[in-house]
Amino acid sequence: MSYKEYVSRDYKPARTDIICEFNFKPAKGVSVLDAAGGIAAESSVGTWDKVMTETKKVSNMRAIAYYVRKNIVRIAYPLELFEPGNISQLLSSVAGNVFGMDILNSLLLKDIIFPKNYVKSFKGPRHGINGLRKKFKIYDRPLIGTIIKPKIGLSSSQHAKIAFKAWVGGCDIVKDDENLTNQDFNPFKLRVNKTLALMRKAEQLTGEKKAYLANVTAPYDEMLKRVKYVEKAGGTHIMIDVLTVGWSALQEIRKHTKLPIHAHRAMHAAMTRSEDFGMSMKVIAKLCRLIGVDQLHTGGILGKMSESKNEVLETVEAITSKKNDLGMLKQVMPVASGGLYPGVVEKLVKILGKDVIIQAGGGIHGHPRGTEAGAKAMRQALHAAIERIPLKRYAETHEELKEAIKKWGVKK
Amino acid sequence: MSYKEYVSRDYKPARTDIICEFNFKPAKGVSVLDAAGGIAAESSVGTWDKVMTETKKVSNMRAIAYYVRKNIVRIAYPLELFEPGNISQLLSSVAGNVFGMDILNSLLLKDIIFPKNYVKSFKGPRHGINGLRKKFKIYDRPLIGTIIKPKIGLSSSQHAKIAFKAWVGGCDIVKDDENLTNQDFNPFKLRVNKTLALMRKAEQLTGEKKAYLANVTAPYDEMLKRVKYVEKAGGTHIMIDVLTVGWSALQEIRKHTKLPIHAHRAMHAAMTRSEDFGMSMKVIAKLCRLIGVDQLHTGGILGKMSESKNEVLETVEAITSKKNDLGMLKQVMPVASGGLYPGVVEKLVKILGKDVIIQAGGGIHGHPRGTEAGAKAMRQALHAAIERIPLKRYAETHEELKEAIKKWGVKK
Repeated sequence: MSYKEYVSRDYKPARTDIICEFNFKPAKGVSVLDAAGGIAAESSVGTWDKVMTETKKVSNMRAIAYYVRKNIVRIAYPLELFEPGNISQLLSSVAGNVFGMDILNSLLLKDIIFPKNYVKSFKGPRHGINGLRKKFKIYDRPLIGTIIKPKIGLSSSQHAKIAFKAWVGGCDIVKDDENLTNQDFNPFKLRVNKTLALMRKAEQLTGEKKAYLANVTAPYDEMLKRVKYVEKAGGTHIMIDVLTVGWSALQEIRKHTKLPIHAHRAMHAAMTRSEDFGMSMKVIAKLCRLIGVDQLHTGGILGKMSESKNEVLETVEAITSKKNDLGMLKQVMPVASGGLYPGVVEKLVKILGKDVIIQAGGGIHGHPRGTEAGAKAMRQALHAAIERIPLKRYAETHEELKEAIKKWGVKK
Repeated sequence: MSYKEYVSRDYKPARTDIICEFNFKPAKGVSVLDAAGGIAAESSVGTWDKVMTETKKVSNMRAIAYYVRKNIVRIAYPLELFEPGNISQLLSSVAGNVFGMDILNSLLLKDIIFPKNYVKSFKGPRHGINGLRKKFKIYDRPLIGTIIKPKIGLSSSQHAKIAFKAWVGGCDIVKDDENLTNQDFNPFKLRVNKTLALMRKAEQLTGEKKAYLANVTAPYDEMLKRVKYVEKAGGTHIMIDVLTVGWSALQEIRKHTKLPIHAHRAMHAAMTRSEDFGMSMKVIAKLCRLIGVDQLHTGGILGKMSESKNEVLETVEAITSKKNDLGMLKQVMPVASGGLYPGVVEKLVKILGKDVIIQAGGGIHGHPRGTEAGAKAMRQALHAAIERIPLKRYAETHEELKEAIKKWGVKK
């Protein structure tokens, strides 16, 4: 069977179509058009052979590969193929079996563009960037966050005390690490209680609004219980490892809490980094905005992770643009994280602007004089960047920053 | 900082450790030991720099890369790093940030071996192969399944009628396609009602036990409602797109229904097919067995999907072995699917044996005389394979099989 019935360069996508852009390479012996058509078939109504059960209505619901050039194909999907408000169903269609097809040697889902009516079936962020800024009463600078380190193994008391030092030193936000949930050495409830108590103390001491992002990642019922526990304990945020938790539970949690959701993307690179099969971080980010997380890890550019500046900027644009296909939804606050330290802040702000949370773990707790000094150094670096004072000059009069620069240097 | 503190070739894994095997390639300028240690660090207690907050207890909780040879590293993780019964937390640790680290040019998680105490914190399959065989009262042959085709676009009535023909023709199982959930043209409840009604009729007609696998994939609350709807309507199975739904919701659904769970793996190849970043299907399969699905797609070998025979056999072994690390849990029934037809059945049974569901979509509904004849041809092919009658000889006296062979040939 030829898949060419699923290719039509004359087709002009309807305003209600969902558009997917893939990079692809056909397997040996497969024509470009058959490969492109095969993707459209398998991700919509078709299969490997013509079936006797196909009706005229079904033929009209085919996805159409309307743009095929070199290794890029754009496919238009009639909206009725998709269940409104169901991310899992969307992915099972356009990012499902297609990756396994033997007619392809490579397939990367680079972008999905959504029509208005589909976007409307999702909630989007409850708070977004503006809502978060109101909560913190900080309008003119990035937020500074830290991840408690070591990642795992501290007791609840130790965890809370280190959080306290980070807040007092100048962090706005303290979060759990992605693999810390509810282990014996640091039970969830005890950690939340102790950390929130010291958060309130830090707020009194500094006069600043602080946030603790408790990682509620768990099987659904337990996760919801943890969310409710944070709410009752007076917590102001939750954190979820959105990809290891999965879309179905994430969508549901979004409906059941008013707390801002911090989305950690652990495991994304198992899908986003490959050059042969997978999808872009931009696609994952758009799904997160549809569902309605308020903060999303988008890459640190200058740190220990591999993503290029361009990739990160594309992801950031997707979740913050007011003019793209998701522009009617609130903006998700990007989080830059992974191997950051005071010496990268100036450059990072130049690249990403003010609407970002800059998170440092090792770059704070690895400061020669410990966590509080490390947090101070980060705030000092941020202050210098915002006021456009050269970092080294500012360090002359700011001891913590000077020590941080001595240890880690400045990113040019 | 050197990651070498996380490497110790003298370390002998404890019986309580979780063991992960990775294939990896260091980035340019990074030593093999630093890369191996870096994986162990980032997936346990470490980060890119030594932190002032590390305690002796934490140091003792480090993961240890104890086997490093060529591009293979085996890492032992102390069990206390992990929350019992929480797959999301496990993945956020051993399959989280590591894939994004810039010290690596490639990272594939090939296997996870679980200690008894960890396995005990999961439910495993409720029914397993033996339970399913009892339900069907079929003990001596593979089960034959079909996916209603076209994938999407039929009305609920059309869907049910095609299912009926498949059952009457000889299919044991009829399932929804992975991207069919609850769309306007075929609403979930109507489909379940109509299809189950005709399933009962087919059971009366054939005297055989039949199953309908309704795809309940949705945001969690809605998914649970659909499961309960199937239960009340007298359905005997549910189907979930486990990867697009995600681990958190899947674990929870397993707790809330007694129906066997058919696990479709749409999207797996976005993680499992890449040669540079991702994880093996074997790992995903083991997680599915831990959680407790009863049937899992493991690859068709001879069809339209790309996996090699070896990959499929490894996956099948992981979910059916009574002697591996998951041997105390019930066996998951493997599902061979994707581009199959009568002419592959003999060879498939030779490779996979009797404990398998053989599913054909296009290979049934694409039969020149339609669905019922297609299902008959599949059962005839299966009968020939089990009775070791040469397929072509059997086809001489079985018209449907003859026509199928004429159209699609026989896989040698």
